[in-house]
Amino acid sequence: MDVKAAVALEAGQPLSIETVQLEGPKEGEVLVEMKATGVCHTDAYTLSGADPEGLFPTILGHEGAGVVVEVGAGVKSVKPGDHVIPLYTPECRNCEYCLSGKTNLCQAIRTTQGKGLMPDGTSRFSLAVKRAQAQPNSPFSLDQQMIHHYMGTSTFAQYTVLPEIAIAKIRADAPFEKVCYIGCGVTTGVGAVINTAKVEPGANVVVFGLGGIGLNVIQGARMVGANMIIGVDLNPSKRPLAEKLGMTHFVNPQEVEGDLVPYLVDLTKGGADYSFECIGNVKVMRQALECCHKGWGVSVIIGVAGAGQEISTRPFQLVTGRVWKGTAFGGAKGRTDVPKIVDWYMDGKINIDDLITNVLPIERVNDAFDMMHRGEGIRTVLTF
Amino acid sequence: MDVKAAVALEAGQPLSIETVQLEGPKEGEVLVEMKATGVCHTDAYTLSGADPEGLFPTILGHEGAGVVVEVGAGVKSVKPGDHVIPLYTPECRNCEYCLSGKTNLCQAIRTTQGKGLMPDGTSRFSLAVKRAQAQPNSPFSLDQQMIHHYMGTSTFAQYTVLPEIAIAKIRADAPFEKVCYIGCGVTTGVGAVINTAKVEPGANVVVFGLGGIGLNVIQGARMVGANMIIGVDLNPSKRPLAEKLGMTHFVNPQEVEGDLVPYLVDLTKGGADYSFECIGNVKVMRQALECCHKGWGVSVIIGVAGAGQEISTRPFQLVTGRVWKGTAFGGAKGRTDVPKIVDWYMDGKINIDDLITNVLPIERVNDAFDMMHRGEGIRTVLTF
Repeated sequence: MDVKAAVALEAGQPLSIETVQLEGPKEGEVLVEMKATGVCHTDAYTLSGADPEGLFPTILGHEGAGVVVEVGAGVKSVKPGDHVIPLYTPECRNCEYCLSGKTNLCQAIRTTQGKGLMPDGTSRFSLAVKRAQAQPNSPFSLDQQMIHHYMGTSTFAQYTVLPEIAIAKIRADAPFEKVCYIGCGVTTGVGAVINTAKVEPGANVVVFGLGGIGLNVIQGARMVGANMIIGVDLNPSKRPLAEKLGMTHFVNPQEVEGDLVPYLVDLTKGGADYSFECIGNVKVMRQALECCHKGWGVSVIIGVAGAGQEISTRPFQLVTGRVWKGTAFGGAKGRTDVPKIVDWYMDGKINIDDLITNVLPIERVNDAFDMMHRGEGIRTVLTF
Repeated sequence: MDVKAAVALEAGQPLSIETVQLEGPKEGEVLVEMKATGVCHTDAYTLSGADPEGLFPTILGHEGAGVVVEVGAGVKSVKPGDHVIPLYTPECRNCEYCLSGKTNLCQAIRTTQGKGLMPDGTSRFSLAVKRAQAQPNSPFSLDQQMIHHYMGTSTFAQYTVLPEIAIAKIRADAPFEKVCYIGCGVTTGVGAVINTAKVEPGANVVVFGLGGIGLNVIQGARMVGANMIIGVDLNPSKRPLAEKLGMTHFVNPQEVEGDLVPYLVDLTKGGADYSFECIGNVKVMRQALECCHKGWGVSVIIGVAGAGQEISTRPFQLVTGRVWKGTAFGGAKGRTDVPKIVDWYMDGKINIDDLITNVLPIERVNDAFDMMHRGEGIRTVLTF
């Protein structure tokens, strides 16, 4: 079928709105009509060419929401008409990782997903190209160029094919242009609080970086009943929204006399019970660990550091009881946890409306990237 | 009272067997007759002068077992005749740390203990010195020099005074010259497995360094039903005893072709569920983390690194699910946990007999240090 999509033809170039060809779902796969998709820094990272695992041409996007149109053979957990959120971290419920009960990092389709392919090793997307541009070894006819899937989701297409294990079924009354954000940012932040750190009521929490992830950490901490929720950011304009979401104290490191770590330890009367690094800065990761409470403080790395960068600290920090961990997709098992987070949004327990600061048609995808690069708003959502 | 003790008069010098003066127990304190004490690397570290918190003169020793002789006012948990093990990590059961349920690092007497004093800010030990050597500001008469307590325990004295909260009451049929080792080394290793890592049956464990701590980690892992228990050491002579205690695989890094970390990941079919660094080498600490299983592997630092040394890794190691933590005194709450470990020894669940490789009278304390420096045996115990 012909599908409208924003295609990343090559690294470092704007996306191109194209009509691509999409094959129907094979066994264990599902065809989904995308209704809305967020634009995330991870999409921009891959598009920039800095992502060593980036493959082109591809259809980016990993934070979507839509409706099931057709299911392939053997698909049992969803049916046409179901509202769904694609999962870049699937949940097969059968692999060693899923069965461990200790992690959300399902490995069932990791290899093919990393190659930009469906689990059978092929792509469902292709693009008609002039005969002269065709690849000699293409699996398609000479005038069809294969396009890679991206993170197993490719939500920048009006229709996409997903493995059944990479789909969370959600309630039908949730607005697509809001709950698509649960496909990545909301779950990453809220999940880090609930699944990875397991913050308990009354805990003191320090959040480094008040972008989209940090704000979701804040509202996750508020939801579970944290006591102090301290936001740390160089930009004071982040303060009002962070406070609305639950931040109790704002710390601008530029306004702190002396070192930030002892300041935060004093403010929390001994150190953070939990801290979260939501920036991707290895020096901040160290501060986040060292501001934790002796004996039990847990620091969670969420931000993605630059290639090759390293974290360090004195081992005494750990021997005296601090714990250093990290999280991906908020430690959430998508098929199980994402529908719950949608419920929390619908119940008013978490705020997404204030975080979706722009809604644009898919045709303006490059404007959305530009706004993100300029730091305008929190999340831009594209609609089809 | 006059007490025989091995006194560290100054850093870097052999200990001196002296008759020191010991005041009786004040309120909340207990007079204990020491029956046996182990000699640990931590004693040697302080004696060397390298310990920045070392104070002299002092009576070293922190791994003892003995009998209560007299109790001060208000002491309720022990009485004369009780067999006890001194605790360098006390358990007051009332401070924020004890009540957190998250740590064993009781802070009730940390400040005075760090100054080599009892909780009231004075020492019970003194030594008669020639008048010309007396300190002008000594709190004692001109010919008595104050001697510091060490780690709150000072077990290299035939009698010592301890805070009630720093005493574990143990069963009366346990042999002093064996269970004294539970006062430090056994609990540090076994406790790291049980309390800090919480190793579960069937887990694969990698232990770096097969000295006394590593051997106790091994037998702790065996006790809780670990599957693979892999010991890593450059010295193949460590192998037989480690195997006797439960090691299932021995890895000599010098015999591994290529890098050690991928070798261990292969050997464990994906990585260690738990790893333990029992050396104090920051490079090994990194290997211990990175050989852990993606998604859930937990690495525990037990070894004490040199001053100012730092650990480092790529944050990706944590974001993909590995956890980095540390432990002191095996995460054990001494008054609660030490009596249990004594029971385990008496029940044959853990082996101490093979680890006590030398028993010497206190007068040969310097020989014991020399043997430890030469790496002879596992643990030397001194008797009174």
